[in-house]
Amino acid sequence: MTQTKSAVEFKQATLGNGLTVIAEVNPEARSVALGYFCKTGSRDESPEVAGVSHFLEHMLFKGSATRDALGVNLEFDQMGAQYNAYTSEENTVYYGAVLPEFAPRLLELWTDLMRPALRQEDFDTEKQVILEEIALYEDRPNVMLFDWGRAQYFAGHPLGHSVLGTTRSITALTRAQMADYLARRYVPGNLVLTLAGRVDWERTLEQVAQLTAGWPKGEAPRAYPEVKARVGELREPYPKATQTYLAVLAPGVSAQDPRRYAASILANILGEEGNSRLHWALTDRGLVESVGAGVDEADRAGLFYIYAQTHPVNEEAVKGVIREELGRLEREGVRPEELERAKNKLATALVFAGETPMQRLMSMGLGYIYNQTYEPLSEIARKVEAVTTADVNALLEEKPFSRAFYYSLVPA
Amino acid sequence: MTQTKSAVEFKQATLGNGLTVIAEVNPEARSVALGYFCKTGSRDESPEVAGVSHFLEHMLFKGSATRDALGVNLEFDQMGAQYNAYTSEENTVYYGAVLPEFAPRLLELWTDLMRPALRQEDFDTEKQVILEEIALYEDRPNVMLFDWGRAQYFAGHPLGHSVLGTTRSITALTRAQMADYLARRYVPGNLVLTLAGRVDWERTLEQVAQLTAGWPKGEAPRAYPEVKARVGELREPYPKATQTYLAVLAPGVSAQDPRRYAASILANILGEEGNSRLHWALTDRGLVESVGAGVDEADRAGLFYIYAQTHPVNEEAVKGVIREELGRLEREGVRPEELERAKNKLATALVFAGETPMQRLMSMGLGYIYNQTYEPLSEIARKVEAVTTADVNALLEEKPFSRAFYYSLVPA
Repeated sequence: MTQTKSAVEFKQATLGNGLTVIAEVNPEARSVALGYFCKTGSRDESPEVAGVSHFLEHMLFKGSATRDALGVNLEFDQMGAQYNAYTSEENTVYYGAVLPEFAPRLLELWTDLMRPALRQEDFDTEKQVILEEIALYEDRPNVMLFDWGRAQYFAGHPLGHSVLGTTRSITALTRAQMADYLARRYVPGNLVLTLAGRVDWERTLEQVAQLTAGWPKGEAPRAYPEVKARVGELREPYPKATQTYLAVLAPGVSAQDPRRYAASILANILGEEGNSRLHWALTDRGLVESVGAGVDEADRAGLFYIYAQTHPVNEEAVKGVIREELGRLEREGVRPEELERAKNKLATALVFAGETPMQRLMSMGLGYIYNQTYEPLSEIARKVEAVTTADVNALLEEKPFSRAFYYSLVPA
Repeated sequence: MTQTKSAVEFKQATLGNGLTVIAEVNPEARSVALGYFCKTGSRDESPEVAGVSHFLEHMLFKGSATRDALGVNLEFDQMGAQYNAYTSEENTVYYGAVLPEFAPRLLELWTDLMRPALRQEDFDTEKQVILEEIALYEDRPNVMLFDWGRAQYFAGHPLGHSVLGTTRSITALTRAQMADYLARRYVPGNLVLTLAGRVDWERTLEQVAQLTAGWPKGEAPRAYPEVKARVGELREPYPKATQTYLAVLAPGVSAQDPRRYAASILANILGEEGNSRLHWALTDRGLVESVGAGVDEADRAGLFYIYAQTHPVNEEAVKGVIREELGRLEREGVRPEELERAKNKLATALVFAGETPMQRLMSMGLGYIYNQTYEPLSEIARKVEAVTTADVNALLEEKPFSRAFYYSLVPA
């Protein structure tokens, strides 16, 4: 296949107030995606404000000093924007895509929302929404499995903090606590404004410099205590579980680790749905409803995970098969044909995940947050292509799965 | 905004056996999407084989003379393909996307599957899957609403045929009936092989000519009886309904009708979720769980539809508000600011729906099936931009909503 020359260009600048702006400019694109990546999440919360990052994300859509919630909604709608936001353990991301002519307006809107009004009335109303969301998730053992499993695995480390918080922490949270968190975390040094697609770079820089001229400088440090992960097994009866839900958590690689492509390939070989070692050993034999494996590459820490859902009568058999497969993997390593299949899958998934400005935005913004560098898609694809069985087997030689933690929710 | 020159090129050919091949070649793309569009669906079925199009779609994945179901699955997987198929009242579409190096292999696979083995054992097994699918949908009044509502509205016209068929028709269906349907409908003259993305056009043509050299020529006609749509109201008690489900169906425009962009804009103004006349009149006032409107542009026929879900106590109030809003719309027409907002929405949605080869494939293949022409995205966008309030109001002057049919499923 001949490679075509790509007109895509990476741009980067840091404003006087410390705000970083990055863009992947693609003149061939038909849309512009842009958003703010804030390096803050539940790992940055103290226990008394557990869930404040996620609650604050909701509050941004309630408006600023000059906009109310209805106005914010209508503006997104008038632009025909596709937009959303999410909060994880480590990041809070606000993103949207529009036709190029609306890009300045979308930028103005997101920038204004970074300084939310946090009106008491909106705060009180939204608190009820969050509490309902928590109650809703508690009805779903497959969701709580990871929330609670991580808390146990990370054993006090902030990476085990729940994104949603608890009914108790949210009920007790005050507007003043949220305002304090906002002031400390949403500072220019902790935000990356990211753009992708048909971006007018010069105009963007000029506009954002003007819009954020009044923002006080600031950095928001993050704590990196050592991870002392739990090993062994924990079974918790849960009244809302009608099946057995199992999570296996084991030490993996971080978002900064050059071995992360090898780790993704390993997880694919182990547990991709439809065709993987665990699929053939469990799903195909009718032992589970579902099983899968993946990686969570976090800031200076990471893990491999496996999840399985099964009839309670099969619980021990399923755990037995998983231990056996993990043992075999650590003893024998992976086969070349498995590696090739997994590389094809990963390379294709990367391409599909990079075909639109919105998708590029997400991958580029997170990549920058973790590594302060830009990697074009072609470079990532090259790194995937370069992974060898020796690379994957080197990960296995560290025996991560021998240090796994088995967490399950079982019917009460 | 400066327009960039696009390297996208349209290609078209008809093979000796009558098979049409079309491609939107984009050398900048990173993937290739390709698939077969078969112009056949439930409207082309006689009552005794109701559901055969959809059942046959499932059977293709069971393999050909030289491939079994497991082999088909593994091949898609080895290529890292994203793929699927669907059946509607008018079309059966098989589509997938891969990295460019796998395109010849994906083409070979789809082409082979167009000649399925229809093994009796697979047929019997899959029949149970289809029957379970029907039972599953019958548990969902929001799905059955349109299936049953269309049957009543089209009053004997084939566009009212259910895609799934019925428990009775599927139970009675034989392998021989399916083989007969396949032989009559999956003929080269009724298929369009569609490709999009980084396509090697010459190589594709050569390969497909070779692969389909043995296919006998053939055309598959479609009947176009006159639509004599039902007007008025029908309420049906349904034991599985806990809420009231309402569908309003009214005469619209066909997929061939140049007024279809105006029709889409009208439906958006009327019933887009989140911001539209029905949203403000119903959702915002708490009268419904959900409400929306849209168009169904079919082959030489079309309709506007509205759906609403509400607490039974509000049923009459909701119908009253809908009649009132439709009456006002027909009397007063639409306002310029509504038109602008809807045009922005539609233009943006078009761009987002055309950013990847897979999405281009779907839009291009269906466009060709209905109009035997190719329209680049820029041309469609131009047509949307050109719609005026006069265009939309001309549709309303035909008083489509005065000839509406109100169909509801209510708790038994």
